[in-house]
Amino acid sequence: MHPISLQSPYLIFLGDESRRKFVKTGAGLVDWRRQLCAGQFRLSADTADLGLPDMTIEEAVAAGVKSVVIGTATVGGALPASWQPALAAAAEAGLDIVAGLHTRLADNRALSTAAAGSGARLVDIRVPPPELPVGNGRKRTGMRLLTVGTDCALGKKYTALQLERDMRSAGLDVDFRASGQTGIMIAGRGIPLDAVVSDFLSGAAEVLSPGNSPGHWDVVEGQGGIFHPAYAPVSHGLLLGSQPDAFVVCHEAGREQISGWEHYPVPSIEEVIARTVAVGSLTNPKIRCVGISINSSTLPADERGAYLADLARRYGLPCVDPLVEGTSAIVDHLVQQFRP
Amino acid sequence: MHPISLQSPYLIFLGDESRRKFVKTGAGLVDWRRQLCAGQFRLSADTADLGLPDMTIEEAVAAGVKSVVIGTATVGGALPASWQPALAAAAEAGLDIVAGLHTRLADNRALSTAAAGSGARLVDIRVPPPELPVGNGRKRTGMRLLTVGTDCALGKKYTALQLERDMRSAGLDVDFRASGQTGIMIAGRGIPLDAVVSDFLSGAAEVLSPGNSPGHWDVVEGQGGIFHPAYAPVSHGLLLGSQPDAFVVCHEAGREQISGWEHYPVPSIEEVIARTVAVGSLTNPKIRCVGISINSSTLPADERGAYLADLARRYGLPCVDPLVEGTSAIVDHLVQQFRP
Repeated sequence: MHPISLQSPYLIFLGDESRRKFVKTGAGLVDWRRQLCAGQFRLSADTADLGLPDMTIEEAVAAGVKSVVIGTATVGGALPASWQPALAAAAEAGLDIVAGLHTRLADNRALSTAAAGSGARLVDIRVPPPELPVGNGRKRTGMRLLTVGTDCALGKKYTALQLERDMRSAGLDVDFRASGQTGIMIAGRGIPLDAVVSDFLSGAAEVLSPGNSPGHWDVVEGQGGIFHPAYAPVSHGLLLGSQPDAFVVCHEAGREQISGWEHYPVPSIEEVIARTVAVGSLTNPKIRCVGISINSSTLPADERGAYLADLARRYGLPCVDPLVEGTSAIVDHLVQQFRP
Repeated sequence: MHPISLQSPYLIFLGDESRRKFVKTGAGLVDWRRQLCAGQFRLSADTADLGLPDMTIEEAVAAGVKSVVIGTATVGGALPASWQPALAAAAEAGLDIVAGLHTRLADNRALSTAAAGSGARLVDIRVPPPELPVGNGRKRTGMRLLTVGTDCALGKKYTALQLERDMRSAGLDVDFRASGQTGIMIAGRGIPLDAVVSDFLSGAAEVLSPGNSPGHWDVVEGQGGIFHPAYAPVSHGLLLGSQPDAFVVCHEAGREQISGWEHYPVPSIEEVIARTVAVGSLTNPKIRCVGISINSSTLPADERGAYLADLARRYGLPCVDPLVEGTSAIVDHLVQQFRP
């Protein structure tokens, strides 16, 4: 009944991966949780460099590291044999090993033997915590903001993390709540919603953002899209269980088809707002949209401003590209909307 | 990628359960699939009697029985020790054992040893088939009808089974598609949707009602309720993946609160129709409501007729209690609506 939870500080394990785009998880940790990253472990001089101090397992133990976090994606999701000696040594030394591979860490005999001996945990962030409850639908104290999307993979996690950062800067009491693998690595806790058995989806979302003090905000990372032909049920469960007071719609400028389901059009922002309010009002009748977050990387630089201004005018909501200008405009609007 | 599938004929195993209400699964099999039930197995003279020939395991084998189906609910969902000798003997004789208990049959050493020796299968109908795909959202040939509900446990399965029977009587080519445990027992195949991992929900629903000949109808057993605070995501996935051309709304007269979630009101039939069309039109824009099925057991007999007539007038749709008058009025309307 508790989310997955990681122990920091971390040693980011990069193996022998030299390609920057395959070390995204590690890079995300450095971008968003630099203070939790004690060092990096690289098997060769060619391995991508995240700019953290290089450490051996022994040095990491001495530095008080608690977990080795595998920060690279591997081909096929398996654990390369060349990584095993270092990881086994870490587990033997009592460091938790954290990964989001297809292969379960616990199925690796060397790792499980080493971990059993030292009491280290092998944490597979693809595996939901056990004994999740069925959703009860009861209102919890505290405030919640959910990022929703017109599709998958267009910025819901990034938007939520930037919102957390800007809300904290604005003096709000705030926590990012991770619902997907990379988010869980970054947050150090969370539940992989898409891996939860259907009956427990909204219950898992309830556990993810528990009751909190009245002025506290949870910024919940969205999943899927409420008009997605395959993943809409996940979005539905997350919306019901999160009971958001506020939501931000994330969209990629110019994306017209659902990625990977090109026979389905991307819904309009208007449709997503209307459906999110319609579905979400079951568990929180006060739900409202507080902003639009645009991934404008596909637009020519000189069209960006007009595109955002047009959307802002049309919806009467702050509209930003979080990578370019941050989310402060949305935070200002949020604070104004929810002034006690 | 295939639904669970049972081999008939069956021996219905009733153990030593004397209370009629705990042998509902067995009774459902006799009600809806009498032709597949070769006999019943009762451990004592007190055991409930479904009116089938009593058979020993040896007699069942001689009669060509292929599966022993456990037709009772047990306290806590465990397998009573007193049942094991007979079930192990059946597995040893090569009969599949089929159950929907909380305990997995495969975790019972005597049963798994016996089954391994003979090649019999231990079929846990709570366990979804492996390797379900992610939904692809592509239109399949054939026609589909889904039963949906204002809440759980008010007649979606019964309505679907009666529709199958009445559609067949009307000369239609039709199959009942089971999405829940009891339904799977009755149909001899299906997928327990609520046990499927969220990412694969709509894909599982697609596998459940595969492409078929153009005039063929699948009558898909609904799950949950699209306004249910816990189970709406399951209903959502089933609706998207079933791509129904037609749906029937099931409701219990007088039920005002969601059963077990009494802080939530039961939605109106009108709201359920509107939301089902809104959500379902993503994968089938032609979706329409073709009837209302009322569980009127809570009404005084002299109010029933007026209640149904009022609903029929208000919605302009056939409105029946399937237990009382069957579903022929809905079938007539369906045939008229979908006349080629």
